[in-house]
Amino acid sequence: MNTVNINTPPPYLTLAHNENLPVIMTVAGSDSSGGAGVEADVKTITAHRCYAMTCVTALTAQTPANVYSIKETPKEFIAEVLDCNLRDMKCNVIKTGMLTEAAIEALVAKLDSTDEKERPRLVVDPVLVATSGCALGDSSLCKLLKTKLTPYAELVTPNIPESFELVGEKIEIASIEDICKLAKRVCKETKCPNVLVKGGHIPWGNGKKKHITDVLYIEKEDKHVVYTGNYSDTTHTHGTGCTLASAISSNIARGYSLCQAVYGGIEYVQSSVAIGCEVVKSHITNNGPVNHVYAIETPLEKMLEDECFSAHDIVTKPSTHSAAFGKQDFFERIIADPRVKPHWDSYVHHDFVKQVAQGTLKREKFQFFIEQDYAYLIDYARVHCVAGSKAPALEDMEKELTIVGSVRNEMKQHETRLREEFGVADSAYFQNIKRGPALNNYSRYFNDIARRGNWQELVASLSPCLMGYGWALLNNEKFITVKDGDVYHDWCYTYLSEGYQNAMVQGRSILNQISQTYPKEQLDVLITIFAEVCELETKFWDAALNYGE
Amino acid sequence: MNTVNINTPPPYLTLAHNENLPVIMTVAGSDSSGGAGVEADVKTITAHRCYAMTCVTALTAQTPANVYSIKETPKEFIAEVLDCNLRDMKCNVIKTGMLTEAAIEALVAKLDSTDEKERPRLVVDPVLVATSGCALGDSSLCKLLKTKLTPYAELVTPNIPESFELVGEKIEIASIEDICKLAKRVCKETKCPNVLVKGGHIPWGNGKKKHITDVLYIEKEDKHVVYTGNYSDTTHTHGTGCTLASAISSNIARGYSLCQAVYGGIEYVQSSVAIGCEVVKSHITNNGPVNHVYAIETPLEKMLEDECFSAHDIVTKPSTHSAAFGKQDFFERIIADPRVKPHWDSYVHHDFVKQVAQGTLKREKFQFFIEQDYAYLIDYARVHCVAGSKAPALEDMEKELTIVGSVRNEMKQHETRLREEFGVADSAYFQNIKRGPALNNYSRYFNDIARRGNWQELVASLSPCLMGYGWALLNNEKFITVKDGDVYHDWCYTYLSEGYQNAMVQGRSILNQISQTYPKEQLDVLITIFAEVCELETKFWDAALNYGE
Repeated sequence: MNTVNINTPPPYLTLAHNENLPVIMTVAGSDSSGGAGVEADVKTITAHRCYAMTCVTALTAQTPANVYSIKETPKEFIAEVLDCNLRDMKCNVIKTGMLTEAAIEALVAKLDSTDEKERPRLVVDPVLVATSGCALGDSSLCKLLKTKLTPYAELVTPNIPESFELVGEKIEIASIEDICKLAKRVCKETKCPNVLVKGGHIPWGNGKKKHITDVLYIEKEDKHVVYTGNYSDTTHTHGTGCTLASAISSNIARGYSLCQAVYGGIEYVQSSVAIGCEVVKSHITNNGPVNHVYAIETPLEKMLEDECFSAHDIVTKPSTHSAAFGKQDFFERIIADPRVKPHWDSYVHHDFVKQVAQGTLKREKFQFFIEQDYAYLIDYARVHCVAGSKAPALEDMEKELTIVGSVRNEMKQHETRLREEFGVADSAYFQNIKRGPALNNYSRYFNDIARRGNWQELVASLSPCLMGYGWALLNNEKFITVKDGDVYHDWCYTYLSEGYQNAMVQGRSILNQISQTYPKEQLDVLITIFAEVCELETKFWDAALNYGE
Repeated sequence: MNTVNINTPPPYLTLAHNENLPVIMTVAGSDSSGGAGVEADVKTITAHRCYAMTCVTALTAQTPANVYSIKETPKEFIAEVLDCNLRDMKCNVIKTGMLTEAAIEALVAKLDSTDEKERPRLVVDPVLVATSGCALGDSSLCKLLKTKLTPYAELVTPNIPESFELVGEKIEIASIEDICKLAKRVCKETKCPNVLVKGGHIPWGNGKKKHITDVLYIEKEDKHVVYTGNYSDTTHTHGTGCTLASAISSNIARGYSLCQAVYGGIEYVQSSVAIGCEVVKSHITNNGPVNHVYAIETPLEKMLEDECFSAHDIVTKPSTHSAAFGKQDFFERIIADPRVKPHWDSYVHHDFVKQVAQGTLKREKFQFFIEQDYAYLIDYARVHCVAGSKAPALEDMEKELTIVGSVRNEMKQHETRLREEFGVADSAYFQNIKRGPALNNYSRYFNDIARRGNWQELVASLSPCLMGYGWALLNNEKFITVKDGDVYHDWCYTYLSEGYQNAMVQGRSILNQISQTYPKEQLDVLITIFAEVCELETKFWDAALNYGE
């Protein structure tokens, strides 16, 4: 007989005792294959740390390939579920998906008989189900929905075909203005004060730059908010509509404003589509579900990481990995890798550096760069702290902290440059630097990797900055014609100084150390990260070079 | 017209493109109120970053108070759902909950006709539903389940009443051995090679020390594994059975061993019960659901933290909070607080310190303490790195890093002590210190707070160690009779040194700085953390004092 003691819940977590979870009830059809309907709703609401209740309007036997069978729930049963849920449970928001005539009637009757102050907020996703008598496909159902239900709603979220159905005609959509007009018409038709028309069916632009546009119309302010996102070229979009409406409902229930809630909902859906998942068998090629769980960390994984758990004998320690390379220089391998090379080359041969070296760069562009770089270095120092906390050995931790010290020195040099060359007098100036998009994208990458990455991945993300500045200046050393005493001269020689070049040698040795102990199949991830960060560095200098133009 | 650009998915996340999610199909009844049944299953599977499919055996109108109405799904429809899901979708594990006769027959027929190599693994939670004709309450159904379905299963998870039903008689349970015997009998009756008998209905012990016991019987090894956990004195346990079986199924699908999967499942359920949630209305007092989402961070919150998002104008920045106290000393307030005082007092007046001061502590106890403290200091340094990364100002970041430096010095002193006083020669010794439970619990607290806490909360968790050691030695200064040159003397004066006492002054000033800018209502959380960590410190010295006894 083995005995195992279960850990008490993580002590800090218990501070949230009897957590007041926002509650969302979904009134929709069930999708047995889990990608859409009630299942997608429950998954989305759960992923938003909210509490889901259900009222199943119909069961379906379906997969992303097709809807094979529908079994509608009788009206009396729907009414009983609504009664039970709203009598005994808290409910902040009701979200509807696929509705039958019975479901609309039962829900409207319930809303009619509920005191206005007690009535949950309502989000209506007017689902168009082509293969059955359910939902908007049937124009009498559409009429029932828009005359009886949507006047109770705070938001309706039709896509473009559903909007046509709601306004009763097909309109040409040739521009974003056309979508704006359509949203306003839906608002009028549905008597719902806020309308989100989803433009996912119509990507604009072309190639890698394709984007999609969702338009929120807010009647009270007679205002349109246009959300522009990236188009993912994938067929795995089963369940996006349900997912968006549930995400927005969760955000509303949590107390965010409608604009914020919609923003969060769209970003959640876009991420779940872009990341995707492999759960359909290979003979289904036309469609697949989105990844609702992309941001969730698994509890058991956490427990296994948790040192306390390792006190139990039931844990199998991961095997130690053999060296992936011999003594070969890993850094040389990285920059020669075809995934990295184009990005590394455009980074370390950047025109920005050449123009500084020759003294031809406009001064205001350099000032903009120094400001952005100053703000960047704060993030850079923070990420080194995180890397220190995750370092496998104390020596590695100390190396990270040494780097933080030298980053602080670099920042002080920047401060001096801004004070002496650009007349900055006020200390508050340094706290209030306006961050440009190139900096923000870079920081965002750091945020993400600091939160999820291990030490090796963090090192890979921090290396391009360290190695690239020194390398770029070595490449441009022969072009340095700017005079000694000029801030450009000073900046160039910072990265050619013995101290900096020594730091590069150390950076290189850390990369080599990693390559000799890290599992070979994961080195690819490090290389991908390195390549992505080189691209971010290039864009950072691009932004300075293009400043003011 | 406002326009807002949606961020692309976090770049690092997209490395997980087309993630291969483990798939679990739940075959169970739906609980409209969301706490149990299919809904609890989908929530649990989602919280484990797995993909959920459903096959609804019956709809119910229910709340934690009662089951009001049941609508069984016809056999042909169940069969069609099973066909669709298993034909078009991947499926690693099938988990069953409330089953009707129709459901058992349809599922068994499907398993019979599926090639053994293609058959998903099966976990059967033999749900006992008293108020209907469904599931085990009906003995003919019980017979059908155990003769036809459980022989296909890898694991059955009955509670004690369900076990009685399965073995056909009620047995006295007076000891853990009785549960072990029961588990073995269930194994024989059900022809299922692994049985988990859940003892949650029978808490052992009393008062704060009540615990519950689950027993896993593994037929192949004729072995029992006894899992002992803490009993939560709460009525909010609606859905624990479904949740446990789904958590175990998710862990199995993810590739963990049965023992690990069960461990993870039990800990997940215990945490969701202990943390709880408030979603039932106040007139329902007898029962409520568990908190399935306790470990999930909300996507929008992350986006709002994300600096890139703040580039958009739709974010409302949190208001700056006014000072909660004047110039009053916050540290004095903390240690006088009734929640802190008893723990602080037993910590800083600990007998361990007195015995060291007087030279009466057994040497092996001191050696044990130094070893544990050495391992502790590694964690302590890591958490200071994390605090540095979260510090609001660069000055605060630098303070954290300075502390890391002095922690490294303290560790070197410990190394010297162990080498010179206790004959440690081998350097590997320091990497292989066996961590005791007091150390592990403390580290676990740090892990948790480092992952979730903000800078202020981290400071609150790091302060008791810094302040308490100096304070305890000041309290015991008059008892120091051990001779100069003795390692005990050296240890005592480390914490009375000018350097250490200065560090305490700085620690105090950081606490004061926090109290003047942090929202008053959140200061309570800091005080709770401080109290909890004082308790962990006391237990750390307790462990040394009791070592070898």
